[in-house]
Amino acid sequence: MRPHIVSLDQASREEAIVQEAVNSFDRTPSPRLRTLMQALVRHSHAYLREVRLTQTEWDAAIRFMTDAGHLTDDRRQEFILLSDVLGLSMQTIAVGNEAYADATEASVFGPFFVDDAPQIEQGGDIAGGASGMPCWVEGSVRGTDGNPIRGARIEVWQADDQGLYDVQHDDGRIYGRAHLFSDDHGGFRFWALQPTPYPIPHDGPVGAMLESAGRSPYRAAHLHFMVSAPGYRTLVTHIFVEGDPQLEIGDSVFGVKESLIKRFERQPVGSATPDGRTLDGREWSRTTFDIVLAPGDV
Amino acid sequence: MRPHIVSLDQASREEAIVQEAVNSFDRTPSPRLRTLMQALVRHSHAYLREVRLTQTEWDAAIRFMTDAGHLTDDRRQEFILLSDVLGLSMQTIAVGNEAYADATEASVFGPFFVDDAPQIEQGGDIAGGASGMPCWVEGSVRGTDGNPIRGARIEVWQADDQGLYDVQHDDGRIYGRAHLFSDDHGGFRFWALQPTPYPIPHDGPVGAMLESAGRSPYRAAHLHFMVSAPGYRTLVTHIFVEGDPQLEIGDSVFGVKESLIKRFERQPVGSATPDGRTLDGREWSRTTFDIVLAPGDV
Ligand SMILES: [Fe+2]
Ligand SMILES: [Fe+2]
Repeated sequence: MRPHIVSLDQASREEAIVQEAVNSFDRTPSPRLRTLMQALVRHSHAYLREVRLTQTEWDAAIRFMTDAGHLTDDRRQEFILLSDVLGLSMQTIAVGNEAYADATEASVFGPFFVDDAPQIEQGGDIAGGASGMPCWVEGSVRGTDGNPIRGARIEVWQADDQGLYDVQHDDGRIYGRAHLFSDDHGGFRFWALQPTPYPIPHDGPVGAMLESAGRSPYRAAHLHFMVSAPGYRTLVTHIFVEGDPQLEIGDSVFGVKESLIKRFERQPVGSATPDGRTLDGREWSRTTFDIVLAPGDV
Repeated sequence: MRPHIVSLDQASREEAIVQEAVNSFDRTPSPRLRTLMQALVRHSHAYLREVRLTQTEWDAAIRFMTDAGHLTDDRRQEFILLSDVLGLSMQTIAVGNEAYADATEASVFGPFFVDDAPQIEQGGDIAGGASGMPCWVEGSVRGTDGNPIRGARIEVWQADDQGLYDVQHDDGRIYGRAHLFSDDHGGFRFWALQPTPYPIPHDGPVGAMLESAGRSPYRAAHLHFMVSAPGYRTLVTHIFVEGDPQLEIGDSVFGVKESLIKRFERQPVGSATPDGRTLDGREWSRTTFDIVLAPGDV
């Protein structure tokens, strides 16, 4: 697009408005709020001036936010979805979890975590009866010094093979989530389900925007982890499935990191399972996730 | 504030997220939507990275938008208020009404215009029974070539001296608004009310933000105009009252331009009015607003 050239007179009128709006926050008592608001003014005006936003487009933006607000309730959060599909949720995660040595990379938290998931023992099953191909997950939790971390709390959650989390049903059922603790060698192992791609809710204004942009609402298949231990930075992340075609199409919320893509190896029907579990003639898969936690003060 | 220094590794992670989100809009069929979305991604990520937004602040922003959405309905528009108090509404007006010769400057439209205000004759009264000090307003409508524009449609609207517009009552009453047409010499004259400062609605999240920032929710006293004529750019603007203390404190939506501040001269009780109207012992004021319209194709 040809850049729009404005007269000096016009440019100084526009800059005067930016300056007035910035100055209006000069006496904000909280220095942090002052910083946040003044930077918001500068960046939002820079956007508006660069794209030469029209009145019609401004009207459409107001309508978009209004529709998003009216759709949002206790079970649906259209503003979080908007933040997600613009990459802003992932960027907030990146900013809050700075690269540190070989610490495992973070990813988006998502809306489907719950606080009081059941505890399982080592080798237990998080599926809770949900449908999907069984998947054996094992790995270790270590510090960046290579030492194992024992007793780390590992929260795991995932959708079933229909792409739905338990909390997306309204009957209070619980499946596809649990927590366990790493053993004396920092190890962990449990049964889960082979992850499946699923779309973010896309029947609202955010979905309409994705459709107008020719973008897929699907997330690459993933398994959620949150790992915490005293003295370490809490890690919120996912692992993704090598070969998942959605990795090529693009994860709708930009949660993928190369380092988080893992091999999920399909195992033949009837093959021996690590813990001797019998799977009644079903296929299964297995994967490994070795986790490295950053120190707590970085 | 000391700028936050990030490692090269961290910076490249953050830039990768921006690039991924920008690229996700590469195949947007509408070139304009592509431009708008890609620029939105760039500017919003630049903001977030510059201020090093925390997860807690992101949570607060989501809550703010959610509350704004729930307060917004047919009569209350919290997203427009947010745009207003950040100067974004005024900047959109500036971008859409580029400086042209001595054409009168535009200002914000505001939420209180209605389409079907009554017509008055030259010298008529827009007050419609509303309380306030009578104010005689006269002036002319010309092109930038200096030639008078006859038959220009002049819409005028204002609050009463309690700071309320008619549409803020829920009983359908009509006051403080009318339209008239410029005469054969481009002239116009009518009775209105001396404008009074009034606050924007400030009992919601936008009002709470202004309070946290130590900002006044008041608008400088003003009289709204919208002036249109075939072949000319439609002008939406206000005139402001010289000496209004709110001009010093600051207009909460940044609508003031030096060129739009007019003398409103107080007239002694019992003094002769321009049209011989008797004011039953009330004080009155008068002002002049000479309007210059830009050509329609700039
Ligand atoms: Fe998920
Ligand atoms: Fe107004």
